[in-house]
Amino acid sequence: MIKNMNTHQTRGPLDHSIRDQVVEAATEHFGHFGYEKTTVSDLAKAIGFSKAYIYKFFDSKQAIGEVICKNRLGMVMDIVNAAIADAPTASEKLRRLFKSITEASGDLFFHDRKIYDIAAVASRDQWPSATAYEQRLHQLIQQIILEGRQTGEFERKTPLDEAAHAIFLVMKPYISPVQLQYNLETASSAAVLLSALILRSMAP
Amino acid sequence: MIKNMNTHQTRGPLDHSIRDQVVEAATEHFGHFGYEKTTVSDLAKAIGFSKAYIYKFFDSKQAIGEVICKNRLGMVMDIVNAAIADAPTASEKLRRLFKSITEASGDLFFHDRKIYDIAAVASRDQWPSATAYEQRLHQLIQQIILEGRQTGEFERKTPLDEAAHAIFLVMKPYISPVQLQYNLETASSAAVLLSALILRSMAP
Repeated sequence: MIKNMNTHQTRGPLDHSIRDQVVEAATEHFGHFGYEKTTVSDLAKAIGFSKAYIYKFFDSKQAIGEVICKNRLGMVMDIVNAAIADAPTASEKLRRLFKSITEASGDLFFHDRKIYDIAAVASRDQWPSATAYEQRLHQLIQQIILEGRQTGEFERKTPLDEAAHAIFLVMKPYISPVQLQYNLETASSAAVLLSALILRSMAP
Repeated sequence: MIKNMNTHQTRGPLDHSIRDQVVEAATEHFGHFGYEKTTVSDLAKAIGFSKAYIYKFFDSKQAIGEVICKNRLGMVMDIVNAAIADAPTASEKLRRLFKSITEASGDLFFHDRKIYDIAAVASRDQWPSATAYEQRLHQLIQQIILEGRQTGEFERKTPLDEAAHAIFLVMKPYISPVQLQYNLETASSAAVLLSALILRSMAP
């Protein structure tokens, strides 16, 4: 047991770095050739590892896609958190949340069209990374509502769950990669108009 | 001139009925084989007219698709108008509008997946039929807001255009065929939650 642990400890950081290398190479490879059309064999050949070796670290192509997707969605969430961190009011937090998540999603998914494809598959097929991301956004919306209710900026009659879920639904077409592609042109003006509508809906 | 008019009058109803026949046959044909993959030659062969004869009545395949699309969108709008006609209040009209347009869009586009494809192309490529439909919906939303402002159900501070456009944007993912496909499962609960949010936003 101790031996196993030691072995694991010794291998841990190396494994981790190899996983990272595979993810980094796969991000670039999928970025060029697309996610859906590329097989693990293609990927193995392109990055110079054997297919069996890649399968030591990832169960499937989706498992690699998952990590790439999680990284990108994590980047979006970091940008959002930075944008709202110093907002003086809950209302301003909500406005900045809508604006920054729309912009960051547009930038990170459409800057690189092929990476967008992975996010779109993840969103369509409800990968854990996409589901976890939606849950985090849901929680963030709840937190902002609670804060605004405490400061008296927002009304308190509507059940918290209901208010939060409705706001999430208003935002969804601008954060879901599969839907955002149809809303890219209108996204920035929509973020302004829809934040204002949401804030009117929460007026005390 | 009089002769021309007479000729036109004589030919008018016949032309009209042939146009209708082409549209009817095309609706069925596209419904089986899809819109994007079918050529006017395929269509001509299948319905037993010559290609040249079809081109006498329609400039292009899109022109036929346009009529099919316009008919379907007209059916959606008829269902919506019937649903809101006897609503006792502007609030109830808004609720019924959201519910009926979501249901009718789901039924009419997804009952027949291939007809949905035409509507999706129309929506993606902004065909006049799709644009006109969006404008009619926009106007309907404005009318309901105005009515609610007159009866004192809704606030009057927000510029009418802004309020109407924001509501239109909230509804869009559930009426745009390209986006509705991603929202079908949640559409009926979303219509309830989002109507309630919209009504809260208009509380006086």
